[in-house]
Amino acid sequence: MSRHLIPLALALVLPLPAVAAKKKPVEAPDMAAVAAQLRDAALASDAAYEELRELTDTIGQRLSGTAALGRAVQWAAAELREDGLTVTLEPVTVPRWTRGTETAALMAPLSALMQVLALGGSVSTPANGLDAEVLVVTSFDDLAAHAAEAPGRIVVWDVPFTTYGQTVAYRYAGATEASKVGALASLVRSVTPVSLYTPHTGMQRYGDGVDPIPAAAITVEDAERLHRLQDAGLHPRVSLRLDARDAGVAPSHNVVGELRGRELPDEIVVLGCHLDSWDVGQGAQDDGAGCVTVMEAVARLAALPVAPRRTVRVVLYTNEENGLAGGRAYGDLHGEERIVAALEDDTGSGAPLGFGVSTLRPDGDDTAPDADRTARVIATLTPYLPWFAPLGADTLDSDGGGADIGPLMARGTIGLGLNHDMTGYWPVHHTEADTFDKVDPALVKKNVAAATLMAWILAEHPGALDGGAP
Amino acid sequence: MSRHLIPLALALVLPLPAVAAKKKPVEAPDMAAVAAQLRDAALASDAAYEELRELTDTIGQRLSGTAALGRAVQWAAAELREDGLTVTLEPVTVPRWTRGTETAALMAPLSALMQVLALGGSVSTPANGLDAEVLVVTSFDDLAAHAAEAPGRIVVWDVPFTTYGQTVAYRYAGATEASKVGALASLVRSVTPVSLYTPHTGMQRYGDGVDPIPAAAITVEDAERLHRLQDAGLHPRVSLRLDARDAGVAPSHNVVGELRGRELPDEIVVLGCHLDSWDVGQGAQDDGAGCVTVMEAVARLAALPVAPRRTVRVVLYTNEENGLAGGRAYGDLHGEERIVAALEDDTGSGAPLGFGVSTLRPDGDDTAPDADRTARVIATLTPYLPWFAPLGADTLDSDGGGADIGPLMARGTIGLGLNHDMTGYWPVHHTEADTFDKVDPALVKKNVAAATLMAWILAEHPGALDGGAP
Repeated sequence: MSRHLIPLALALVLPLPAVAAKKKPVEAPDMAAVAAQLRDAALASDAAYEELRELTDTIGQRLSGTAALGRAVQWAAAELREDGLTVTLEPVTVPRWTRGTETAALMAPLSALMQVLALGGSVSTPANGLDAEVLVVTSFDDLAAHAAEAPGRIVVWDVPFTTYGQTVAYRYAGATEASKVGALASLVRSVTPVSLYTPHTGMQRYGDGVDPIPAAAITVEDAERLHRLQDAGLHPRVSLRLDARDAGVAPSHNVVGELRGRELPDEIVVLGCHLDSWDVGQGAQDDGAGCVTVMEAVARLAALPVAPRRTVRVVLYTNEENGLAGGRAYGDLHGEERIVAALEDDTGSGAPLGFGVSTLRPDGDDTAPDADRTARVIATLTPYLPWFAPLGADTLDSDGGGADIGPLMARGTIGLGLNHDMTGYWPVHHTEADTFDKVDPALVKKNVAAATLMAWILAEHPGALDGGAP
Repeated sequence: MSRHLIPLALALVLPLPAVAAKKKPVEAPDMAAVAAQLRDAALASDAAYEELRELTDTIGQRLSGTAALGRAVQWAAAELREDGLTVTLEPVTVPRWTRGTETAALMAPLSALMQVLALGGSVSTPANGLDAEVLVVTSFDDLAAHAAEAPGRIVVWDVPFTTYGQTVAYRYAGATEASKVGALASLVRSVTPVSLYTPHTGMQRYGDGVDPIPAAAITVEDAERLHRLQDAGLHPRVSLRLDARDAGVAPSHNVVGELRGRELPDEIVVLGCHLDSWDVGQGAQDDGAGCVTVMEAVARLAALPVAPRRTVRVVLYTNEENGLAGGRAYGDLHGEERIVAALEDDTGSGAPLGFGVSTLRPDGDDTAPDADRTARVIATLTPYLPWFAPLGADTLDSDGGGADIGPLMARGTIGLGLNHDMTGYWPVHHTEADTFDKVDPALVKKNVAAATLMAWILAEHPGALDGGAP
C-alpha cells in the first residue's frame, strides 16, 4: 500500500493553506473537494489489490488458532504502520477447533466417494466412523414429521438456497435438531445457489443440553442425489468419518490502526473487517477483500495533509468465523469510548452498491432496532450520496451492521455495512474456491473508493451523525 | 422408456392404411406428418430424463474396465430390448487404467493442500511422491524458451481456456513436452472456462520414445496461484503423489440396438454416444445424456406403426474416454456394411442448436474433408430444417462427427453431430460435478426431439443423402 500512497498523497493538492504541521487550529477542508480527490486517487490505485495478493497468496487461509492467523496479524500491523497509523495489537483469546481428516462415502445402493467438510465446532465421529441409512429432509418441519424414522440414521438437510439468512439456519442448527430426534449425525446441503461439487463449511452450534453429534456439509450434488435415491425407495446409506475436535483456546489479536482526529479526537469512527478465515481456500472474499479495503481507506485518510475532524480507526477483528471473540473483546475494551459509528466490510469484493445503516436501542440484554435514529442517520448521509454516484454505490438502506460490530451497536454505536453485489460471493463462500483469482481489481478500486468516501464523511461531517440533514 | 412409449405410439395415428403387419410393400408414410408427431411426442415425454436418472444415480460413473461399466452395458441392453430393438453386445477389449490415491500440496513458500486428478494414462510417481520447484509456463513456446530451467522441476501449464480444441492440447501432450526437456512431472491447469476449485481429468498420451512422467490436472485456482508465486520470485515448490497405473485390459462391449429398415435394410443409419465415462462424477453430461437421447430417438422410431425405409441402429460405444476401442471395434466389425450416415451425440445436454455434417475423402491412412460431398449432404438436409425450428435447432454447419464415428467416417460414412449450447458443459466436463442435477429435463426433451427428427430424416429420405436437394 504505502509504496503507492506516497505519490498519491502528493497529488492531493488541496485548496488549503499549508498549516497542517502547525499547532494552531486548521481551517476545515472543503469536504467535497477532498472527497473528489480521494475517490479519483482510490480509483487509480491497485494498492489494496496488491495487498490482498500478498495476504492470500503468501499467508493464505487463517483459521483462529493457526500460525497463519498470527502471521496475518503481524503482516497487517506492519502494513498499517507503514501507512502512518498508530498500531495496537489487542490480545484476544480465541477458540481453537481442528478439522483433522474427514471422509464420506455413499455405501448403498452403490459406492461413491463424497466430498465432505465438517462444520465449525463439530465433534468427531467414532474413530472408525459411522455407517447408517440417511433420512433426507427438506425443513425443520419435515424432520419433525419424520422424527420417528430419525433414530440411528444420518439426517441429511436438502434445503435449497433461498437467501443466506434463511438457508444458513439449517447449517447452524441442523445438528442440534437432528440430535434431539436421535439421529447419529447431521449432513447439511452446502449453503450456496451454485455448485461445482464444492462443499461449503461454516459455523454450527449445539443447543444447550443437546447431545453433540457430528455435523458436516456435503455438496449440493450429493444432497440432491441422496434425496433422489431416497425418493426411489433405494434406502441410501452413507459412511462418515470426522476427526474434528475442540482443541481448547489460543492467543490472538485484534489489529487496530488509529488516525487521531484533529478537532474531535474523542469521537471515534471505526472501519472494520475480520482477519481470520475458515480453513479452506485463501480467505480472499471472506474477508481478505474487506480487510484490504478498510485498511486502504483509512491509509488514504492518513495521507491527507490535514487529519479528519474525528479519530478514525481501522480494526481487523479476529475470530469472526468461529466465535466472534474479536468483536466481543473490542466491545468490552472500548465500549466506554465514544465510538460514534462503525462500518464493517464483510460481504466480499463484488461491485459496491451503497451502504446499510442500522442503530439499536440498548435495552438490557435485549436490543431492538431504533428506526427513528436510523432514519436520522440516513437523512444525514443522503446529501452526500451524489459523491458515490460515479461508483454506482449511491444507495442507503436500513439494514446495516456486521457480526463484529454487533457489540458496539448494542452500546449505541451507529452500524454501517458496505453493500456489495454478492452474485459471485455465495458460490465461493467458505470453500476452497474462495481464492484471489476471483477478485476483480477494478471492483476492489471501487470498493476502496466507496469505503474511503464514507470514512471521510463519518469522520468529517460537521454535526452529529444522527442529527438529521446538515 | 418403454412404460412411456406405449401410449405415445398408440397416439401416433398416421394417415396410412393399417398394413404394417402384412408382407406386401407398405405405402411410404407422409414424412412431414410423422415428423410433427414424433417431435410433439418427444417433447411430451420424460422417458429419457428418467433413464438418465437411473443410469447416473444407480450405476454412476463407469470408467472402462470397471464393474460399473459392465452394469451399464447390461442396463442399456435391457432398456433397448424393452423398446423392441434387436440387441447385440459386441465384445471389445478395453484398456484398464486405475487412478489409485493421489495427493498434491504446495510446500513452499507456504503449505496448502491442492486438489489434483491424475490424467488418464498417467504413470505413478515414486511411492514416496515427488517434491520439486515448479516451472510455470503458458504455452509450448514458453516451455521451449525456458527449457534450460525444466530439468528436475515440475512443469505447470497455466494455459487459460480459449476453446476446448485449443486448450486441450496442453492436457493431451503436456507431459510429453515436459518430459522431453527433463521435467519430473507435468501439471496442467484444468481445461475449463469456470472453476469452483474443481479439477478436470481427461486423456493424455505419451509420445513415442518419450520417458513417461506423472501427469495430472490441478485447479485453475492453483495454477494461477503458482503462477503468481513464481512471478513474485517466491519459487513455489509442490509435492505430488500419484498411484495411477496401467492395469492391462478388460472385456467390455459396444451395445447395439437395431431396427430393421422396411425398404432398404442394407442401408444403415447409426445413432451413437459413448456409454463409458471418466471415474469422477456421474457421467451425466459426458455422455449419459447423449446415450439416453439416442436410445430414446431410436426407440421412438421403433414404436412407429411402419418402420423407416433404412435400418437404424443405436450404438452405445465403449471406451471413448481413454482409448476409443469401442469406436475402432465397431468400424472394424461393420466397416464393410453400407453405413450411410452416423450421428454422434457427445456434447452434453444443453439446448440443441442444430447439426454439424462432415464427410471425409478416404485416402489410405490419411483422410481429408470432402467439402463438395458435405455440401451436397447439407443441401439434402436443408429443406427439412423448418421441422427443427420449433426446437431452436434449425442450423447446419460443416463441422460434424464425433470421436467414436471417426473410423466409420474414414470409410466413407457421412458423419453428423448434434450441436448443443455448451455453456454449462465445459465447467463440469470430466469432473465430480458432472452430475444428474445439472441436467434440465426440458432440454433433454428438446434434444430427444431433435435427434429423433434427424434419425427419421436420415432413415426415411427417399434419395441418396449426398445427392443434394431432393
